[in-house]
Amino acid sequence: MMIRAMVIILTLFVAAGSAAAQMDQLPSWNEGPVKKALIDFVSRVTTEGGPEFVVPAERIAVFDNDGTLWAEQPIYFQFQFALDRVKALAPKHPEWKETQPFKALLEGDMSTFAAGGEKALLEIMAVSHAGMTTDEFAETVKEWIATAKHPRFGRRYNEVVYQPMLELLAYLRAKGFKTFIVSGGGVEFMRAWVEPVYGIPPEQVVGSVGKEKFELRNGRPELVKLPAVDFIDDKEGKPVGIQKFIGRLPVFAFGNSDGDQQMLEWTAAGSGARFMGLVHHTDAEREWAYDRASHIGKLDRALDEAMAKGWQVVDMKRDWKQVFPFDK
Amino acid sequence: MMIRAMVIILTLFVAAGSAAAQMDQLPSWNEGPVKKALIDFVSRVTTEGGPEFVVPAERIAVFDNDGTLWAEQPIYFQFQFALDRVKALAPKHPEWKETQPFKALLEGDMSTFAAGGEKALLEIMAVSHAGMTTDEFAETVKEWIATAKHPRFGRRYNEVVYQPMLELLAYLRAKGFKTFIVSGGGVEFMRAWVEPVYGIPPEQVVGSVGKEKFELRNGRPELVKLPAVDFIDDKEGKPVGIQKFIGRLPVFAFGNSDGDQQMLEWTAAGSGARFMGLVHHTDAEREWAYDRASHIGKLDRALDEAMAKGWQVVDMKRDWKQVFPFDK
Repeated sequence: MMIRAMVIILTLFVAAGSAAAQMDQLPSWNEGPVKKALIDFVSRVTTEGGPEFVVPAERIAVFDNDGTLWAEQPIYFQFQFALDRVKALAPKHPEWKETQPFKALLEGDMSTFAAGGEKALLEIMAVSHAGMTTDEFAETVKEWIATAKHPRFGRRYNEVVYQPMLELLAYLRAKGFKTFIVSGGGVEFMRAWVEPVYGIPPEQVVGSVGKEKFELRNGRPELVKLPAVDFIDDKEGKPVGIQKFIGRLPVFAFGNSDGDQQMLEWTAAGSGARFMGLVHHTDAEREWAYDRASHIGKLDRALDEAMAKGWQVVDMKRDWKQVFPFDK
Repeated sequence: MMIRAMVIILTLFVAAGSAAAQMDQLPSWNEGPVKKALIDFVSRVTTEGGPEFVVPAERIAVFDNDGTLWAEQPIYFQFQFALDRVKALAPKHPEWKETQPFKALLEGDMSTFAAGGEKALLEIMAVSHAGMTTDEFAETVKEWIATAKHPRFGRRYNEVVYQPMLELLAYLRAKGFKTFIVSGGGVEFMRAWVEPVYGIPPEQVVGSVGKEKFELRNGRPELVKLPAVDFIDDKEGKPVGIQKFIGRLPVFAFGNSDGDQQMLEWTAAGSGARFMGLVHHTDAEREWAYDRASHIGKLDRALDEAMAKGWQVVDMKRDWKQVFPFDK
């Protein structure tokens, strides 16, 4: 009787196991060439004894963030954070009412602000991203993420993330991949919120970096953020950032813009099986439609290279059954 | 009968389990205050429901390399690599016979070389660590590690590592810690050999970084190492490196010199249980004895701070039963 019970339990376990194996792990992806290529790639590199098997330690997957994991319209979300910080700090800086680029920003005069070019942008980044300790900055970002709302969707910014990509991240990790962000965004801005959203820990976030200084403040060690750029993790900087922070060639890379082109080229340069993917924003109804002529997330030369080399291009409208977690 | 056999098997498993639990995981450490403090710390932070429990994601342990995981006498091993490279490259550079600092090095005239100061050192580093692709550099290091022998021990340099620290790394990982190197050494020099020796993958190696440039060479993407320093991961640089590469405060840090003082201060600054340790080189017979007056691995102010604050100080002679894996 006891033996019989154990056999039944064992049978149930085996049945549950094979049901799980057949369950769709990418339910928000429509059947089509990209979904097929993803599953096919993962199957090839994880088949032990197969000709394209990749040991788990080498299963490095890198993802751009803006426009690849979360949206980037109508303006980069980190830039929105900077604008909101300037507004929040304005009462303590009455002089900003008469000083550019702050005056333009506070008056909502974006064309005057834009005329200030890179210098204006760096001034905004300096006051919103420096002059405080790393702990203070992280707290500021966490508070913003917990309260600010996206103007189109009325959702918190960390909800305006792509459901299919969340599934892809989890799928890859379940298959023994180590998932990294490699983004032009600020590394400390991202690390303050990405772990619970993407399941990516701080030490697997690569991004642009500002200079920092270690000092004792009243005997307590602090890292102070300085108003100076240390490293820009974009375009040619992405392979440099991958080498510097990860030190291994990825076998899998996903981006969405010309800023990701070199990261995909670098990933493609390795021998053995490789997956290079781009998100093409083609869905003005559920998200946005933009590519070659866009200021934000311009996708032009990278799209040509993807088509020439057979990299996978997600057609958001065609390939994604659901875009955001809040879409139902 | 069947049930009886299963009960016996189960009993054997349980017995084996508790024997394993009692097995000494740090056999090369003598019983004493440091070994006791290590086991006590790990037990406190891994006891679920206990007052000092640390979730696995936060179990970040950082280790200096030179003098902490491997030896650093009579000269830093990476500097020996640089010298050996200059000798290997000399036949292709006949002009070095008449040009300093190369002339002095090739003639073994170390006092003339030393008189060249930092400029001479940077020139040696430039010719040995730059002007090639990252792949070419990694191959060069691997070849050197596989062949060069330490002058005192006649062993390969990656054998001149501390057995007690290898055990400590494995013990921490078995307890859910993520182990990182945070060293003043070059990150690409270390990544070329540390994984099989320490069980630390490239993406968990933080070190000093040279500038690199992404370029297409005959259509093939390459990263070229430039003769310029990007970041020095030493002293005040170590907390900056930890923040930049890891993005979390460690709960455990081990070093051996004043170059590690700020890393230990930064680790100590967090709330909750913390372990700060220093290796004190006190064993001239089996290794070396040096501290306050040493040029290499000077341990002076960090030792004072350790004593004042109750950080753990390994007395190599007292605390380590065995120093190197080849000691028997």
